[in-house]
Amino acid sequence: MKFKTIKAFGLTALFLVLSDAAFAQQYEPLLLLSKSEAKNISQHLGDYKILEKSFSKVKKGADKALESKIEVPVPVDNGGGYTHEKHKKNYRELYYAGLTFQVTGEKKYAKFVEEMLLEYAKIYPGLPLHPKRKAEQNSGKLFWQGLNDCVWLVHGIQAYDLVKESIDPKNREIIERDVFRSMAAFLSESEGGKDTFNKIHNHGTWSVAAVGMTGYVLGDKDMVDRALYGSAKDKKTGFLKQIDMLFSPDGYYSEGPYYQRYALQPFMVFAEAINRNQPDLKIFDYRNQLLKKASNTVLQLTDANGYFFPINDALKEKNYMTEELVFATNIVFENYNDASVLPVIQQQNEVSITGAGLKSSEAVNGLKKQEFVKNPMIIADGPEGKSGGLALFRMHTKKKDEQLTAVFKFASQGMGHGHFDRLGILLFNNDKEILQDYGAARFLNVESKSGGRYLDENKTWAQTSVAHNTVIVDEKSHYDGNWKEAEKQAPKTIFSDVSAPEKIQIASASEANAYPGVEMQRTVALVGADTPFIIDVFSLKSKENHQYDLNFMFRGHIMETDFKYEPALTSLSPLGKDNGYQHLWKLAEAKGNQGLSKFTWLNDSRFYTISTLTDDTNNLVLTRLGANDPNFNLRNESGYMVRTKDKKNYTFVSIIEPHGSFDPKLESVQDPHSKVETIQILKQDENYTVVLVTFKNKKSYTLAFSNKEAKSDSKHKVSINGKNMEWRGNYTLITN
Amino acid sequence: MKFKTIKAFGLTALFLVLSDAAFAQQYEPLLLLSKSEAKNISQHLGDYKILEKSFSKVKKGADKALESKIEVPVPVDNGGGYTHEKHKKNYRELYYAGLTFQVTGEKKYAKFVEEMLLEYAKIYPGLPLHPKRKAEQNSGKLFWQGLNDCVWLVHGIQAYDLVKESIDPKNREIIERDVFRSMAAFLSESEGGKDTFNKIHNHGTWSVAAVGMTGYVLGDKDMVDRALYGSAKDKKTGFLKQIDMLFSPDGYYSEGPYYQRYALQPFMVFAEAINRNQPDLKIFDYRNQLLKKASNTVLQLTDANGYFFPINDALKEKNYMTEELVFATNIVFENYNDASVLPVIQQQNEVSITGAGLKSSEAVNGLKKQEFVKNPMIIADGPEGKSGGLALFRMHTKKKDEQLTAVFKFASQGMGHGHFDRLGILLFNNDKEILQDYGAARFLNVESKSGGRYLDENKTWAQTSVAHNTVIVDEKSHYDGNWKEAEKQAPKTIFSDVSAPEKIQIASASEANAYPGVEMQRTVALVGADTPFIIDVFSLKSKENHQYDLNFMFRGHIMETDFKYEPALTSLSPLGKDNGYQHLWKLAEAKGNQGLSKFTWLNDSRFYTISTLTDDTNNLVLTRLGANDPNFNLRNESGYMVRTKDKKNYTFVSIIEPHGSFDPKLESVQDPHSKVETIQILKQDENYTVVLVTFKNKKSYTLAFSNKEAKSDSKHKVSINGKNMEWRGNYTLITN
Repeated sequence: MKFKTIKAFGLTALFLVLSDAAFAQQYEPLLLLSKSEAKNISQHLGDYKILEKSFSKVKKGADKALESKIEVPVPVDNGGGYTHEKHKKNYRELYYAGLTFQVTGEKKYAKFVEEMLLEYAKIYPGLPLHPKRKAEQNSGKLFWQGLNDCVWLVHGIQAYDLVKESIDPKNREIIERDVFRSMAAFLSESEGGKDTFNKIHNHGTWSVAAVGMTGYVLGDKDMVDRALYGSAKDKKTGFLKQIDMLFSPDGYYSEGPYYQRYALQPFMVFAEAINRNQPDLKIFDYRNQLLKKASNTVLQLTDANGYFFPINDALKEKNYMTEELVFATNIVFENYNDASVLPVIQQQNEVSITGAGLKSSEAVNGLKKQEFVKNPMIIADGPEGKSGGLALFRMHTKKKDEQLTAVFKFASQGMGHGHFDRLGILLFNNDKEILQDYGAARFLNVESKSGGRYLDENKTWAQTSVAHNTVIVDEKSHYDGNWKEAEKQAPKTIFSDVSAPEKIQIASASEANAYPGVEMQRTVALVGADTPFIIDVFSLKSKENHQYDLNFMFRGHIMETDFKYEPALTSLSPLGKDNGYQHLWKLAEAKGNQGLSKFTWLNDSRFYTISTLTDDTNNLVLTRLGANDPNFNLRNESGYMVRTKDKKNYTFVSIIEPHGSFDPKLESVQDPHSKVETIQILKQDENYTVVLVTFKNKKSYTLAFSNKEAKSDSKHKVSINGKNMEWRGNYTLITN
Repeated sequence: MKFKTIKAFGLTALFLVLSDAAFAQQYEPLLLLSKSEAKNISQHLGDYKILEKSFSKVKKGADKALESKIEVPVPVDNGGGYTHEKHKKNYRELYYAGLTFQVTGEKKYAKFVEEMLLEYAKIYPGLPLHPKRKAEQNSGKLFWQGLNDCVWLVHGIQAYDLVKESIDPKNREIIERDVFRSMAAFLSESEGGKDTFNKIHNHGTWSVAAVGMTGYVLGDKDMVDRALYGSAKDKKTGFLKQIDMLFSPDGYYSEGPYYQRYALQPFMVFAEAINRNQPDLKIFDYRNQLLKKASNTVLQLTDANGYFFPINDALKEKNYMTEELVFATNIVFENYNDASVLPVIQQQNEVSITGAGLKSSEAVNGLKKQEFVKNPMIIADGPEGKSGGLALFRMHTKKKDEQLTAVFKFASQGMGHGHFDRLGILLFNNDKEILQDYGAARFLNVESKSGGRYLDENKTWAQTSVAHNTVIVDEKSHYDGNWKEAEKQAPKTIFSDVSAPEKIQIASASEANAYPGVEMQRTVALVGADTPFIIDVFSLKSKENHQYDLNFMFRGHIMETDFKYEPALTSLSPLGKDNGYQHLWKLAEAKGNQGLSKFTWLNDSRFYTISTLTDDTNNLVLTRLGANDPNFNLRNESGYMVRTKDKKNYTFVSIIEPHGSFDPKLESVQDPHSKVETIQILKQDENYTVVLVTFKNKKSYTLAFSNKEAKSDSKHKVSINGKNMEWRGNYTLITN
């Protein structure tokens, strides 16, 4: 109504002029929760269970906060330390109290926010850079890194927005000057702060969201414009540029799903604030509704329990139940009316106390429990969708409620948090990791573990190539472990197809720059069968001799091998000197069998076998993580490696096969042995690869594919043992 | 009604005489499900959800069986192999089809049982001992061990009992002669079979249950009497003697909860059959209602998810949802009308298709969901309750729904499946193992792992003392690893008290025979506090010098130590040569601090610290399991050891303390550091021990106790630094 006009811009002057008590009463929240929405929420608490539960949590948090003495300590501690945790607690309490004030109308909550902000106003302007800052990270004042200060501000400004109406002009002035303007200036105009503010990076997104939202609340158009268009307002940086650059057209975020989750909060929350204050920007339509795709894609990049695939620097404990995704799903539903996210909101069983949360509560109220549909998909990476991508293969088995998910990653580096995992794969059985990514080496906020920051082993192990399920050449990481070099090149998608998902889901990609003079190509197919299996063809081409290591970090207990190995019984040594190899104890070594070498492990209720085409020039190595780990920072995970030495061109062909079952409750075991009988390369030349897999029941699968990009309707012909094989498109699978 | 009379005994002759078709129609099931109960079940399927679900599973199993061709293969395979699994499947199908026939009345199910039994009749009498039998185990014919043949018979005879009415006399004769009599004779009268039949051991229980139930169905009083009173009918062996000898008066089964679960099925099922056929025996009242106590005690010996404490040879995958316990809870409810088991039946969400299952279904129908109450308790071991025991300490923390459980084991050996774990402790946080027992080294029925039998590492690791949380003297297992010697001696309970469970739960026990000339005494107390903690005082006395190792097999990730250790970075060696030490890689070693040495790890959402009184003559050793394990049979678990050398008398005093929290979803960490400030031994002499623990918040706890058994009202006085301390009873705890 009449406040709509106040939300429009160009009113900065008016704000400055009208700083009298009469106007003070007129302020209404501008960001994520309007006055009428708050009223609506308070009226519908009894009607919508999910809303009641969510608000009750917020109110409980606020009530608990009000019971204690306000404390705003001078920052001294690392992540996990007292002052660090206290300032985090404070911004949460500010936010909860602000929300509770708007919904209940009880002044005491607003008073709490006001008082705490006045305490911050006392210390903030005088604070130096944080004493625990690190050279390689932009320092905050409240926290060891500026990022956390931005998160503080995103919450703090919302809290202030929610209670501003009840604060008298004098205190408003103090708070705005000594907390919000001071903080916004530090975060966007100080030396380090400005750099981050203009970064195309999740830290940049938190920064522009914090400053931009502050701009709306303070009525400071300059702040908002800088947040949207960069410090120079030239659109080379800032929020819109971040949307352009950090996501692929399919909504994939270059740092990977873990950081996508984290960045989505400022992206979605700031977008919501923009939309409410500058609807003409049509931010939710920006770049073909990119924000909707970004949210939906990250929801797809999860296992059966909603845990994000631990690609790049990722902690495995995060799933889409986290607060960031609660904001995101609610905002997606509100702005796109996209019912596909409702099953996730049901699972989250929580909504944000925002206008979006209110709409979401209405929508799920009384809705029958639905399953969130996860489909096979190919997700392109890169701002233009041309920097490789990810293939998500998903197939149900005949076992009830069992879905296999294979992830084939041929995406770009993902900046400093990226891992050297070109052409790596992951395998999940529902929520169980079968072939795993270590994720990040970090105990978030645990002071005893390097102050909760990334551990040294994140670089020396977690990011290395050998920590992944891919090929390592000459015991070096891809791009020699230099992410800035790696950032310049992305793998190339040769072809992909998930159009007949019950029969086959397949992708082929190449990487020609990870090692000078070595071309890598991997073709991965999840093939439909009673129990689906993976055909994995990894080819290497070079003019020089190299050592090629195909590594698998498996999870589970070793059951059997069909090759005879020498176990290291009474003494262990590391597998290598550097690039992650120094962290692997060598447990056993074997020569490959002539023909097939099989390695079987048990994970939960299934057996898994990797059968690889080998001969006696191959070495097979069993490893365990933990060497050169003086602080016991690493988890002791297990690896199986197929190695070949002194080779120019070489192709690893493997079948990765779930089989049988192990039910210790029923004491029943089925098919503990692999069913693969033979693997053959029928043909391999510059243009084509043809492999044949035969199972013990004599069922066979011939997979033929082009090694080069081809049109989907192009005709191909290869001659095998005098017989012609013809097909259309990039590949064919023949089942007999 | 008229069949009641047939159930009485002395009618064997009648059965043999009346084998004509007219009589054939008159047979009614005698064992666990009467004709009228079956009818009742069929009428109430729609009324009781749990019954419908349970029967539907049975019927589905039966229907699936009827679809396939009956196959009764000549036995050749090990556990997990084809014929092994097939014969297991067959007895289950027989049983399911039998039940389905009685409930639905459909003849095809009876026909299936008849036909399959006729197939067994063709091969059984001619079968030799199983080709995969082991020298140390009694061989079966259908399976590699006789035990499985007994399990077959327990199911097979029930199936026959259920369908016998529909089988014509000629086929009855064939089946009874060539299957049931032949099998019962083999299991109770052949050379190896008779030995097992007369064993006071779970194998013996399965055997007498199988043969005894067969006796009822065949009307063979001799079989029944031998089952009840032993082959010689002198009551020196047999079912009643097993009830006398295998359980303590508190219902503790000497082999431990894992085998208690397993043995309970024949105990309860046979008891039910006895009660229906010889009610005068009052079997459920036998030995002060021992069978009720046995069932209830095993339900208490579980973690928060109902998983059995993995004491002795135990697999960790078993909880009280297993079929054995479904029979047990149902039978307990039916015969004792004991409502305390109803919450477990609710959790099981399944009933047996028996008269007992029917009664249980009625009872839980419409019942509000209840929690199964688990209390602190002291459970005496030994047939007379004088062979030590187990202390179960349970305390809630201030964290919602968090219960700590400490298990202190001073029980007897538990025969061949017993571990050398005298005075060992375990710690659980709800269902999380914090200080663990390895359980058994075995992959049940997994052919690739030694045919699914106990692995060699069960003896070389799992049963050894160093695999447990106790003291090891001179790197040898208790009783030098000889279970027959260990069987002769039990620890002694000095005192125990759980009468003020919010304040303190405490037990003290001694073991004077595990090592010649060494007296061991351990006193363990779970002390009430904001976060409860354990005081652990382990004293050793000897006239000779020894090495004493106090070992903790912890679960979780090492967070920090307050002592400086030398890590083994590039080379690992085993900690010792034998008795389990050969399986431990030595990861790091340190000298003890003067005063306290602290070791902290993270498990799930909690930190845990062991603070031990040390000086620089102590060695602190970090270990990981996995050395000398050529077949990768062992899980790679972690140990922390406090060692002292060349000592005659020595006392380890430790505080085991859960603290803080780790919430990676909220990214919040609290109190990652231990709060213990000092530990002191204020006094220790022949009669008394007094220890003082002070926390950083200056709160202190003084625990004083008698080292010798005393009357609960006896008066004690010790002088500490000139001050007198007086108390009544075995111990006192003073909090300041």
